[in-house]
Amino acid sequence: MSDLNDTPRTDLAGLDNHVGYMLRCAQLAVFGDFIAGQRGAVTRPGQFSILAVIDRNPGLSQTRVCAALGIKRANLVGVINELESSGLVRRDPSPKDRRSNRLHLTPAGQRALRSSLDGQAEHEARITRLLGVAGRRSLLKQLVKLCQLRK
Amino acid sequence: MSDLNDTPRTDLAGLDNHVGYMLRCAQLAVFGDFIAGQRGAVTRPGQFSILAVIDRNPGLSQTRVCAALGIKRANLVGVINELESSGLVRRDPSPKDRRSNRLHLTPAGQRALRSSLDGQAEHEARITRLLGVAGRRSLLKQLVKLCQLRK
Repeated sequence: MSDLNDTPRTDLAGLDNHVGYMLRCAQLAVFGDFIAGQRGAVTRPGQFSILAVIDRNPGLSQTRVCAALGIKRANLVGVINELESSGLVRRDPSPKDRRSNRLHLTPAGQRALRSSLDGQAEHEARITRLLGVAGRRSLLKQLVKLCQLRK
Repeated sequence: MSDLNDTPRTDLAGLDNHVGYMLRCAQLAVFGDFIAGQRGAVTRPGQFSILAVIDRNPGLSQTRVCAALGIKRANLVGVINELESSGLVRRDPSPKDRRSNRLHLTPAGQRALRSSLDGQAEHEARITRLLGVAGRRSLLKQLVKLCQLRK
């Protein structure tokens, strides 16, 4: 039996002891769980974050959304176009700089965000049940430290 | 001063208390640190993981690499094409199934992986200095649990 396709296990070469590999694995799983719990217009974590940040900072520029969420401009523009076509976000030209837009949620966008927040709360509760309150707190503490690697 | 572009802070709407958001932030930071520490032919974590898994499982099929690393087939094909053009990976047709390829590292691929492992070890050591040995162990324990959400 020389064909590895016949053997069920792949040797992960120790990758499951690498923080980066495990972060990616956990992120795929957590994002998948978020998506599975959404029932409305918002289907992806990126859309949710963008709506939540615009809701809390009405009139925010695209540049500021990119900076706040670590999203590349080219990617953000695609998602904002999508949210605008779905009638969830409105772009107003900035009174100070005509090349810049100020972003607002429409009433439909606010409803979509509120409905999405229910799914998000259940998703976060599933994570807390899985890790325990102390486990979740400890995880967030280590993740905050890791985010500092960018500085 | 009504233009938010003049104010330095964006309200993150509590996203920094969401596990998914913080995982993404940490992953961006950790992947950035990995990339910054690489000096040779391997520049991205995905290339590194693929080379490491092929090295440990010579003759692996693309399907098995996708399953082991949670990579979508369309994305894997792009990276394998790239690694093949750079002379790091060789595709041999499977003797059992002509539609399937078996993947091997070339000698240049083995050298690239060894050189990349040095950068990876330094990267992982930076993470351990940041989190402490116990903090890193605790992080990995929680990440393993989160990966189970996919099951």
